[in-house]
Amino acid sequence: MANIITGVAASPGVAIAKVFRFNHSPYIPQQETITDAEAEAGRFRQAIEKSKGEIEEIRVKTEERLGAQKAEIFEAHLFLLEDPDLVDSVLDKIADEKLNAEYALHEVTTAVVGMLLELDNEMVRERAADVKDVSGRVMSHLIGKPYASLSGISEETIILAEDLTPSDTAQLDLNYIRGFVTEIGSRTSHSAIMARSLEIPAIVGAGPSAAAVADGALVIMDATEGKVIVDPSEEVLAEYQAKKKQYDERRVQLKRLAEQPSVTADGQHLELAANIGSIEDLDKVLENGADGVGLFRTEFLYMGRNSFPTEEEQFQIYKHVLEKLDGKRVVIRTLDIGGDKELPYLELPKESNPFLGLRALRLCLKREDLFRTQLRALLRASVHGKLNIMFPMIAVLSELREAKRILEEERAKLEQEGVQVSGSIEVGMMIEIPAAAIGADIFAKEVDFFSIGTNDLIQYTMAADRMNESVAYLYQPYHPSILRLVNMVIRAAERAGIWAGMCGEMAGDQTAIPLLLGMGLDEFSMSAGSILPARELVGQLSKPEWAALAEEALAMSTQEEVQQFVKQRRPQ
Amino acid sequence: MANIITGVAASPGVAIAKVFRFNHSPYIPQQETITDAEAEAGRFRQAIEKSKGEIEEIRVKTEERLGAQKAEIFEAHLFLLEDPDLVDSVLDKIADEKLNAEYALHEVTTAVVGMLLELDNEMVRERAADVKDVSGRVMSHLIGKPYASLSGISEETIILAEDLTPSDTAQLDLNYIRGFVTEIGSRTSHSAIMARSLEIPAIVGAGPSAAAVADGALVIMDATEGKVIVDPSEEVLAEYQAKKKQYDERRVQLKRLAEQPSVTADGQHLELAANIGSIEDLDKVLENGADGVGLFRTEFLYMGRNSFPTEEEQFQIYKHVLEKLDGKRVVIRTLDIGGDKELPYLELPKESNPFLGLRALRLCLKREDLFRTQLRALLRASVHGKLNIMFPMIAVLSELREAKRILEEERAKLEQEGVQVSGSIEVGMMIEIPAAAIGADIFAKEVDFFSIGTNDLIQYTMAADRMNESVAYLYQPYHPSILRLVNMVIRAAERAGIWAGMCGEMAGDQTAIPLLLGMGLDEFSMSAGSILPARELVGQLSKPEWAALAEEALAMSTQEEVQQFVKQRRPQ
Repeated sequence: MANIITGVAASPGVAIAKVFRFNHSPYIPQQETITDAEAEAGRFRQAIEKSKGEIEEIRVKTEERLGAQKAEIFEAHLFLLEDPDLVDSVLDKIADEKLNAEYALHEVTTAVVGMLLELDNEMVRERAADVKDVSGRVMSHLIGKPYASLSGISEETIILAEDLTPSDTAQLDLNYIRGFVTEIGSRTSHSAIMARSLEIPAIVGAGPSAAAVADGALVIMDATEGKVIVDPSEEVLAEYQAKKKQYDERRVQLKRLAEQPSVTADGQHLELAANIGSIEDLDKVLENGADGVGLFRTEFLYMGRNSFPTEEEQFQIYKHVLEKLDGKRVVIRTLDIGGDKELPYLELPKESNPFLGLRALRLCLKREDLFRTQLRALLRASVHGKLNIMFPMIAVLSELREAKRILEEERAKLEQEGVQVSGSIEVGMMIEIPAAAIGADIFAKEVDFFSIGTNDLIQYTMAADRMNESVAYLYQPYHPSILRLVNMVIRAAERAGIWAGMCGEMAGDQTAIPLLLGMGLDEFSMSAGSILPARELVGQLSKPEWAALAEEALAMSTQEEVQQFVKQRRPQ
Repeated sequence: MANIITGVAASPGVAIAKVFRFNHSPYIPQQETITDAEAEAGRFRQAIEKSKGEIEEIRVKTEERLGAQKAEIFEAHLFLLEDPDLVDSVLDKIADEKLNAEYALHEVTTAVVGMLLELDNEMVRERAADVKDVSGRVMSHLIGKPYASLSGISEETIILAEDLTPSDTAQLDLNYIRGFVTEIGSRTSHSAIMARSLEIPAIVGAGPSAAAVADGALVIMDATEGKVIVDPSEEVLAEYQAKKKQYDERRVQLKRLAEQPSVTADGQHLELAANIGSIEDLDKVLENGADGVGLFRTEFLYMGRNSFPTEEEQFQIYKHVLEKLDGKRVVIRTLDIGGDKELPYLELPKESNPFLGLRALRLCLKREDLFRTQLRALLRASVHGKLNIMFPMIAVLSELREAKRILEEERAKLEQEGVQVSGSIEVGMMIEIPAAAIGADIFAKEVDFFSIGTNDLIQYTMAADRMNESVAYLYQPYHPSILRLVNMVIRAAERAGIWAGMCGEMAGDQTAIPLLLGMGLDEFSMSAGSILPARELVGQLSKPEWAALAEEALAMSTQEEVQQFVKQRRPQ
């Protein structure tokens, strides 16, 4: 009998294949007392060196295949193998307690991982997975067995694992591996991000029932719905074979839209732009025919490293993006650190509610050195394309004015130094705090554009942490209160004669797009993979018709009513 | 030369007196090896018993003087003296390590306090202060010196201390002590709350410069402004003597308003109600002539104890409040736990952003057992006065409907059991989440009243934790975006024919009151001490005039403009 397991849809698609169960079964060593501590330390050092060699190999391969950013994780792994908390602690245990290297490593790893997992933080949990991955590899060298690897697979396979480490995903051979299902993890965990970037179907967080699936069992993965069907009947199999075919065909069909303009059924042009986090994302942006970059999240330039990027480093990156986009608009958001995004080397005090704390522009106004470096890099890059600068997390006018004042100061300094700066940079702000949305008319007089950041706007408007499972039911993008705020912002922009965009998840959402179009949104910025489906949908919609329908939706009482209404009215 | 020190105005008033420097100078014992561990343990146990006796004495005195709730802290201290983490750890150290009792106590206390202070949480910090207080007392018995106490003071004095412990403040003799200044602490720390309840001027968090003030120096405390003037000139002294006289006279004058109705200059009646946290607050409510209770924070019934209050316990309390208010309206808010208010015995998982987490009604809908017990107690009490039930932290309609459904279920059950329930209970909700304010028209159809909770509404609308110093500049009650939200709520209530109140700090604020009156707010609920100044102010204001002025304020761009505008226009 077929058995259905559900999980988080992490990367879309349909796959049908046999299961390959993959796990790094943890090796629990015996405690032994050694006599020659120096020899034992040598054995440990050798295992470390071998592990470093392997990781370096994976790093190089990953960089070739997926670009420098995706390979950065392995630099972090190499750092870990030099981390005194890990390495010296093991060496101390060998020297002081005369423990065998295996047991010493096991003890230290367990302690470090335990400590990390106690902290209730997604990023730290990822770090714990890294420590386990690296330690497992060192252990494998100590005991002389190869570290379990996915590199040997040579038939069509769906991988099923408790979790996949970065070094596992780096070795997925896309000639054979059709998708993967993990027991733990969320949409933002490492393996989920990797799957989207490799464009293979993935379901994560499928829970313990996934662990019960036998090795070799035939499964269907519907990663669009987050569903795994184990041992399907002939009938179900046929149904999903058809669904897979349809899905694959649709992908081909959509790709044809990449060269087309973004136009509604009644001939109105709009801008369907892409959100990016690094220059590695640019190929996809161009492949999917984006009309521009609506959000460059520059914080990723600051993460996964040990010091701030210099002005020159940043300049080179901004210049590269502007040149690649070849005259299309590029909206670069200034540093948005804090909240759930920490920079270890910034050493900020711990906050009780980081999402309501010193983050993004608030931090930049306190740490002007950081801010000025970024602004100078942006200003210098401005002559290489069509640059828009966007400030995040503005709540009150004084913040905007202060940010603009500093920008103008840096512009004046550069010009005095004889550096060329574009005269047509647009300066705008994110609307992601309720106060800014409600007072949009106040801000509209002092910026060139708005971009609505729905992820945060929803979280603050609902007073519900978007990373917190217990209040996940309150993350309601189609709630009338959210729609009203969005509408207020668009109306304010319209009256002030500036453009309004959106760069949150909602901008690429098939239910939201008709309403946003109806309200008069000018620019929609989304993940590159959503652009073509959005372009297809927009081509079927009439703006005046949806203007009237959006009015109706704004008067509704619940998200459910709005959802049902749009589903009934939009083209099927 | 006069020297001015500033701190947090914790309890208002003006005082002029000589400084008495008071500190529990920490005793650092020598480490000694003992031979008779049993005798040493006996000595420690004896010190514990003596300390218990003293604390019990203070507890009884406090209960007589300030009521049972204020005395609860000493029950917690007595518990501490039986806490194995403290007591058994010391006994173990004496037995196992042959340490002298003083040193063992010192080591254990230092470790426990260190651990508590590492956690970044206001409530836990208070707990660390408790541990220090109790340990200090035990230490004093071990070394045979009296625990420093404020009870011997017999001349007019202003106390200056690093901090005051609960046992210190319980002993303040108001015949002589005119006020106190502490180096650490915030408006919500124990000593600040105690000062407000004793009605003596207090300034807390005055920082290290307060430590430099000499014992016996003459100081002026202007606790309305949070200012301490050390060694004032004759001229300044005369100025503040006049100010003190004026302040004291004004207090007498205000007291006369306690019997008067709350009426505007143009004859409009409104309701000036009080916020309370326990039945001990009721005397003040009546003394200050409140028109009702606009907010009973029931969570305090659940705090400072080890298990949930029973239905019967709650019933007795609600009945008492309703009877005391004698037919005046009493708005009781259902349990608002979570956020910054934790219940140790509820054992909730730790959240990354508790203010955006599972709190208040969200929690009650997951823990229906708790919720139903409280609702039953409320329904049973309803026949003893004019009860309004209010649900906190509602963001979406489904939450309100679910809460009302459960309430009706419990009402039906009680009626079936033959218990009498009032037929005229009003059911309302807090408006403290932006989504609820923006969608107030949606909610207005399904409740009898709104009460705007500005503390949270401001924090969410500004996306700024109201307990976080680094973003304190964003706590802007007069920001046009906040005023617009408040206005939306009042307009929605008006159109639906229900009443709208406010129970946040803003409702008692002299700058906000004219605007709120102008917008048409029906009920203002505030701390009891603010009622009479509010009544005086309201009596000088014309509603139609402020309706027009509020319109103007709503169109302004910044909080500063609004503040200046109100200050210019309101009666001086």
